[in-house]
Amino acid sequence: MHGSDAKSARSKRFMEKEGRAEAFKQVKKHGIDAIVALGGDGTFRGAVEFNKEHEIPFVGLPCTIDNDLYGTDYTIGYDTAINTAMEAIDKIRDTADAHDRLFIIEVMGRDAGYIALHSGIATGAEHILIPERKTDIEELVASLQEKERRKKLVNMVVVAEGDEFGGANEVAKVVKERLPFMDTRVCILGHIQRGGSPTCLDRLIASRMGYAAVESLLEGRHNVMVGILNNRMHYTLLERAVKSKQKISEEWIKIVKILAS
Amino acid sequence: MHGSDAKSARSKRFMEKEGRAEAFKQVKKHGIDAIVALGGDGTFRGAVEFNKEHEIPFVGLPCTIDNDLYGTDYTIGYDTAINTAMEAIDKIRDTADAHDRLFIIEVMGRDAGYIALHSGIATGAEHILIPERKTDIEELVASLQEKERRKKLVNMVVVAEGDEFGGANEVAKVVKERLPFMDTRVCILGHIQRGGSPTCLDRLIASRMGYAAVESLLEGRHNVMVGILNNRMHYTLLERAVKSKQKISEEWIKIVKILAS
Amino acid sequence: MHGSDAKSARSKRFMEKEGRAEAFKQVKKHGIDAIVALGGDGTFRGAVEFNKEHEIPFVGLPCTIDNDLYGTDYTIGYDTAINTAMEAIDKIRDTADAHDRLFIIEVMGRDAGYIALHSGIATGAEHILIPERKTDIEELVASLQEKERRKKLVNMVVVAEGDEFGGANEVAKVVKERLPFMDTRVCILGHIQRGGSPTCLDRLIASRMGYAAVESLLEGRHNVMVGILNNRMHYTLLERAVKSKQKISEEWIKIVKILAS
Amino acid sequence: MHGSDAKSARSKRFMEKEGRAEAFKQVKKHGIDAIVALGGDGTFRGAVEFNKEHEIPFVGLPCTIDNDLYGTDYTIGYDTAINTAMEAIDKIRDTADAHDRLFIIEVMGRDAGYIALHSGIATGAEHILIPERKTDIEELVASLQEKERRKKLVNMVVVAEGDEFGGANEVAKVVKERLPFMDTRVCILGHIQRGGSPTCLDRLIASRMGYAAVESLLEGRHNVMVGILNNRMHYTLLERAVKSKQKISEEWIKIVKILAS
Repeated sequence: MHGSDAKSARSKRFMEKEGRAEAFKQVKKHGIDAIVALGGDGTFRGAVEFNKEHEIPFVGLPCTIDNDLYGTDYTIGYDTAINTAMEAIDKIRDTADAHDRLFIIEVMGRDAGYIALHSGIATGAEHILIPERKTDIEELVASLQEKERRKKLVNMVVVAEGDEFGGANEVAKVVKERLPFMDTRVCILGHIQRGGSPTCLDRLIASRMGYAAVESLLEGRHNVMVGILNNRMHYTLLERAVKSKQKISEEWIKIVKILAS
Repeated sequence: MHGSDAKSARSKRFMEKEGRAEAFKQVKKHGIDAIVALGGDGTFRGAVEFNKEHEIPFVGLPCTIDNDLYGTDYTIGYDTAINTAMEAIDKIRDTADAHDRLFIIEVMGRDAGYIALHSGIATGAEHILIPERKTDIEELVASLQEKERRKKLVNMVVVAEGDEFGGANEVAKVVKERLPFMDTRVCILGHIQRGGSPTCLDRLIASRMGYAAVESLLEGRHNVMVGILNNRMHYTLLERAVKSKQKISEEWIKIVKILAS
Repeated sequence: MHGSDAKSARSKRFMEKEGRAEAFKQVKKHGIDAIVALGGDGTFRGAVEFNKEHEIPFVGLPCTIDNDLYGTDYTIGYDTAINTAMEAIDKIRDTADAHDRLFIIEVMGRDAGYIALHSGIATGAEHILIPERKTDIEELVASLQEKERRKKLVNMVVVAEGDEFGGANEVAKVVKERLPFMDTRVCILGHIQRGGSPTCLDRLIASRMGYAAVESLLEGRHNVMVGILNNRMHYTLLERAVKSKQKISEEWIKIVKILAS
Repeated sequence: MHGSDAKSARSKRFMEKEGRAEAFKQVKKHGIDAIVALGGDGTFRGAVEFNKEHEIPFVGLPCTIDNDLYGTDYTIGYDTAINTAMEAIDKIRDTADAHDRLFIIEVMGRDAGYIALHSGIATGAEHILIPERKTDIEELVASLQEKERRKKLVNMVVVAEGDEFGGANEVAKVVKERLPFMDTRVCILGHIQRGGSPTCLDRLIASRMGYAAVESLLEGRHNVMVGILNNRMHYTLLERAVKSKQKISEEWIKIVKILAS
């Protein structure tokens, strides 16, 4: 069930008209009636182009660790990624606690803060910095200082790689300068977040969406992305899906603020 | 984050009036203003009784590996349990595949089939037997026979302990009798399904529900169970919550039937 | 790296002379110069027979979860099995602690107690019952009773399936009869112990032994089992290897006795 | 079993004479008869100083993830660290394979290459760079180029942080410059390698060594580090232990060379 056997990287040739024409030739040659494509924004953009030029029923399944696609509460791969991040942060906490160190931990998410938000809440991080909110570094420094004064143990800040301030290394630079007495370390979780055997939820979502994709094709509903919204199947036109992003809910932002105080 | 430090078992004395009176005395003595109780049916029944006799704001959080509580799509602990079951079944599959054996695997669920359903789908079990559906043993035997004839590799049947037929051992007895040429084994996953470090989803649900519980108390909404329905917070009166069970959705039943064919 | 792709079960035809002749024909046809066989007793017995009848260089690698082969301190697969057992028992302990229950846990080992011994010590089991020692059930009952009296929390007994008394169910029967006030449960870990992704030590031992196997063939040392004894490569004639078992060291037996007191 | 509850960091005050005198006062005050100290070089150096100034029986247990202590084949914590590193690298390989990328992965080991060596072999890394061997960057580049030419998939180089060249970032800089057509990425595993629940081997070694430590004290064998050499208990004078390092065996170096060719 590992991804190891699949060559699932994007093809550069498919980004050009001739490449897509060649792809369509292959599709016809192999008698393929319809395509179910797994991917994110890039994949769906390609699908939209492909469909303008060639006629073949198309359904997309949302498949990205960033969980930022419009029209679905879940993307396949997300639950696995946050569990991997959480387990790694749990391990870092062991050291943080034993040594009273402050760890600035960077998780994936260039444009989306979901991984940081959820892995940070799940591991009890004191501060979580995400692209969707301004990173107020003065506030962060003041809060760390205040907690230090109150002898409150603070040891983890989780930062999305795309946070406004520029990721964990940039944040750590300021913290080290302003709070030099703190033993501050940086951990960048990196590509471990993209691999591993899928969690149960990811497999269930994939089963449910795969089933819906086939049904959708049978019913003649094409050029849509299958999603799950509020626990119900939901279909978004691919053209629409690639134009927006899922927003982070106000509810989570409130929970983060409470944790930080 | 392991459960190891908490003595979270039920108290027998609380089941009697005097026990509850004693409990209320303790609550008053320690200046406790409100109670947030984590548990399932039994806990909430106790809370309903307690509230009839003593006045204290009460909020319940759904906490059971069975995922069968009315008024919520998730219960705290469920996601951890199905991931544990799934990982165990993944390991059994290694042997099943290497030896062409048929494994009849029993998972928890005396009255509820959710663990069997979800861990079975996630691991690609060919048949899934649950309390909510009649177990047609003749159909199962015929299906195994037919697949054998078509040389289709069949190696896993997942059974909830409370399936109509009486669990994995009973099912295996019939299969061994009727299909003696099959190398059939039984595995009962048992109590490993109740422990372990919680998954990210379980921690997130717990955070979200815990936050809602406090809000609920502050807003004067008492004697309710906090739930998440269709991705939104939902409050069910405890008296109502203990009277019904969550049903298994038709959508999942359909997916199981397709897998079995 | 899962075993899922390999059909590694034993062949019945190989147990007969004609089957082995057919196997040799295949070996010659494919231009195979030498055989490195992974397995346990059964595999090596087959190898000894094969070598009496057909001439081909043979080297065996010890590969069994039981760790009971003569001539080596490690067998490939053992470390993975004890880690799987340990992680399962860790999860059971969560429940045991929360409910003050006594769990009688059965691990694999029909003739060998290594899995019980090592997983039991690693999880802090109070008693460990193995085939290599007489199971004094009276002593066990008395010890549980004495600990109960001293309010010492006792909650786990680990039993090898081949212990003298007949496994966890048999032990539990007596305990329940004699100590009915104890909340006693049985868990049989079963086939989960045979699967899973290999641990680092198992992969390292396999690399080291595989390297030694090739070297051994190049140097003309045939019909031996490669082993690691006292951290050095060791070669045992296959004929010799199948005649004895690895014994459990006195050192471990002493540690078990201390734990139980 | 997590390290989270223990404040196991080193004390700065203990590095000075007055600090040690104060420590001895505490030891006497609490009626402590003997000390079993878990740690590495630094701990044992402190113990040697302490013993020069104050009389108290002392036994050291080797406890470091680096596995580089003289007088023992294993150190407590090492097996957990290499399994953590291996699991992380397994996950990175999923991406490496899917995208034909080259990952330069840095593991811990400022002065010792054991973690890199063992996690690299266990995950099938093509090249492993360690402090104990000169890092021939020209050879590495040439080898990557040659493999590229032969269309041999090469995707992982494991580097100890203390390798001669200066760690993964430095190595990657040269590789990117010289082989710009390769999609090269860096992953630094960092502090996840220091935490987590201990593996079975680590718990067993700790039990065995702990038992030996007590025996050693009872027998009057003081100021030694308990070790396991060639599968037997071994005692090294602390003064001696802190003067040398464990060397990496020639056998492993040979295996690494074969993997790289």
